[in-house]
Amino acid sequence: MSRNRLEVFSDAVFAVAITLLAMNLAVAGPGHGPLLHQVADHWPSFVVYLISFLTIGLIWVNHHPLIENVAVVDRTLALLNLVLMVFVVLIPGETATVGKYLALGGQDARVAVLMYTAAFMGMGLSFAGIFEWSMSSGRLRQRLPKRARWKARLQFGVASVLYLAAVAVAFVSPPVALAIIAAVPVYYIFERLPVIGPPAGDRQQ
Amino acid sequence: MSRNRLEVFSDAVFAVAITLLAMNLAVAGPGHGPLLHQVADHWPSFVVYLISFLTIGLIWVNHHPLIENVAVVDRTLALLNLVLMVFVVLIPGETATVGKYLALGGQDARVAVLMYTAAFMGMGLSFAGIFEWSMSSGRLRQRLPKRARWKARLQFGVASVLYLAAVAVAFVSPPVALAIIAAVPVYYIFERLPVIGPPAGDRQQ
Amino acid sequence: MSRNRLEVFSDAVFAVAITLLAMNLAVAGPGHGPLLHQVADHWPSFVVYLISFLTIGLIWVNHHPLIENVAVVDRTLALLNLVLMVFVVLIPGETATVGKYLALGGQDARVAVLMYTAAFMGMGLSFAGIFEWSMSSGRLRQRLPKRARWKARLQFGVASVLYLAAVAVAFVSPPVALAIIAAVPVYYIFERLPVIGPPAGDRQQ
Amino acid sequence: MSRNRLEVFSDAVFAVAITLLAMNLAVAGPGHGPLLHQVADHWPSFVVYLISFLTIGLIWVNHHPLIENVAVVDRTLALLNLVLMVFVVLIPGETATVGKYLALGGQDARVAVLMYTAAFMGMGLSFAGIFEWSMSSGRLRQRLPKRARWKARLQFGVASVLYLAAVAVAFVSPPVALAIIAAVPVYYIFERLPVIGPPAGDRQQ
Repeated sequence: MSRNRLEVFSDAVFAVAITLLAMNLAVAGPGHGPLLHQVADHWPSFVVYLISFLTIGLIWVNHHPLIENVAVVDRTLALLNLVLMVFVVLIPGETATVGKYLALGGQDARVAVLMYTAAFMGMGLSFAGIFEWSMSSGRLRQRLPKRARWKARLQFGVASVLYLAAVAVAFVSPPVALAIIAAVPVYYIFERLPVIGPPAGDRQQ
Repeated sequence: MSRNRLEVFSDAVFAVAITLLAMNLAVAGPGHGPLLHQVADHWPSFVVYLISFLTIGLIWVNHHPLIENVAVVDRTLALLNLVLMVFVVLIPGETATVGKYLALGGQDARVAVLMYTAAFMGMGLSFAGIFEWSMSSGRLRQRLPKRARWKARLQFGVASVLYLAAVAVAFVSPPVALAIIAAVPVYYIFERLPVIGPPAGDRQQ
Repeated sequence: MSRNRLEVFSDAVFAVAITLLAMNLAVAGPGHGPLLHQVADHWPSFVVYLISFLTIGLIWVNHHPLIENVAVVDRTLALLNLVLMVFVVLIPGETATVGKYLALGGQDARVAVLMYTAAFMGMGLSFAGIFEWSMSSGRLRQRLPKRARWKARLQFGVASVLYLAAVAVAFVSPPVALAIIAAVPVYYIFERLPVIGPPAGDRQQ
Repeated sequence: MSRNRLEVFSDAVFAVAITLLAMNLAVAGPGHGPLLHQVADHWPSFVVYLISFLTIGLIWVNHHPLIENVAVVDRTLALLNLVLMVFVVLIPGETATVGKYLALGGQDARVAVLMYTAAFMGMGLSFAGIFEWSMSSGRLRQRLPKRARWKARLQFGVASVLYLAAVAVAFVSPPVALAIIAAVPVYYIFERLPVIGPPAGDRQQ
């Protein structure tokens, strides 16, 4: 399979998912009270919109070195990538549910945040799965030295650990679970993932 | 027509269809009972979401060797590909209908599953049609030996036969029809389709 | 501007528009009568779905030689292409409106079909506009001989004439107007548009 | 990061946002009065549809020289581009809100137009931010002479100034704020942005 097709398909899924996210912010329209109040009551939707947007955005940013480093894009990688997409496309719907239920609190808010964190956990685990698969012998363009492998494993894997923690915390405190979810893309904004593929500039033109 | 444009267009359709699938999982929102019950009542939507997602995903994976092997992408192929897309874009809507009616049973569940299986059958038949067209003299990059042609025909065509069976079974038992539909992508996960185009790695970089 | 970016953007718009078309076929769901009746009452939606799908599909197929033949993709072409897209993205909404109002007949059906045909007319005219612009001196990769220019002008322009006729007919008979709209993609299925760009196979690989 | 992936992702977001815009024009359907009246009452939606479409379209057109001129597409650019996208995907929803509230006037119309202009302001500022970042030493393919830098800064930055003005004006007169918003894409239709990357035709083929 050509690398380009895997990337175009994935990028299109990321782009559609990210655009549908914003659809959750739509207000009910005239006849539902002053617009300012409708928007103000919507604040949880804006918060989770930002969290989901940043997370999908960073997954897109990190998807690039992950795929770029693999020597041959085969069917197995295409299938592992599909598993990642199963969870990516769940995010807009789960984001909408959290936006509706978070402010209500109680059991419903816990269930909404639990499903939301579970989708992120699935996304993180399938991302880590692709990374582990790519580390097996001969799949990377350049073998990573052992120490670099562990560093990269940590960098790619830390999200899964935080998402697992968020799932557990969701039973107790939905807002804290959301804060953990929000911390993940912030971490990746500052952390450089290793690019071990072709030398810089190779595919630039 | 450039191969790239056909692939970008098809990949975008696959990506949008796959993302819209998940929109069917949205719950009604506050005021419709506890969220946990709403989600639990939604189980048929989750099941058909997975079936539809996997099927569109595998169609995307199999679309690649199909198009890659064709020597010249002409208007006829573009039109045949459009017929395939007519059915692909029907899937999200039909998936939603099955999700709403399956648990109700009776005549409505049968009609919903019948329309769903019919959309898959149309998708399978147009896929097989593209394959047959590509086999005619001089359209493949490398002529397939006769035995390999029959093997490939079987591999690409088995889905159509199963989908035809699913349409027939839908009148009697909707769940069995769905099980047949679900078996198709599972088959393609384990079966290698022949790649008879350029040598491996040719378009990788 | 790179040709590739114009094509990716246009193909994504075509792909999203074509996928949203099918969203109009969604039934109301349980509690609105037997599913079979709901689907049967929906027949105008299925008819216009097919007409709109084929038309957008053929516009996509014809967009390729149109853009391929232009020597330099500049800002003017990008803007003319945006005008074409203004009408393309109107199609899903207008298709939905016709699907809802056609069977009711009367003034409302006429208004719905009138808006629908007007969107196609705008699409046809902006397509012809891009063609005329590309014909001006020095914009094509290879100068067309005068006779071939007129033939191509006729081939690209016939849709606009038919769409103008459909707008006029919509006031009198909505079904006849729809039949004219449906005839356009059928014509383009059988008519070969001139490809006067690079020799065949140039961008195939 | 490859330039191509950043462009495909951005183009897909632009394309989906532009297509969702038109979804706001859908009428309520039979049982809500004559179709002609429904459409006529919808006129603010058509006006803002055109404004939003043109603006996103021109942002897409201008995005090209901006990215094309950057020598190396790195993580920082990808993140800045994501910030731009946060605002692009807000446009369809804000457009819908203005369409619903503009004709009602009063406080609600002011709030709707304020949010709409704020989204454009965010878009303009992040666009200008990407430009400023690209101007820092060594990031452009060809160093711009000092005078050309200021000219380009003015050209890219004028939108932000107009959008800031529109936000201020929205408190007083929503229609005037919309007129300012509409003036921005009209300005960019006639103004040539500097292309300082590779010589013309370099990536054309």
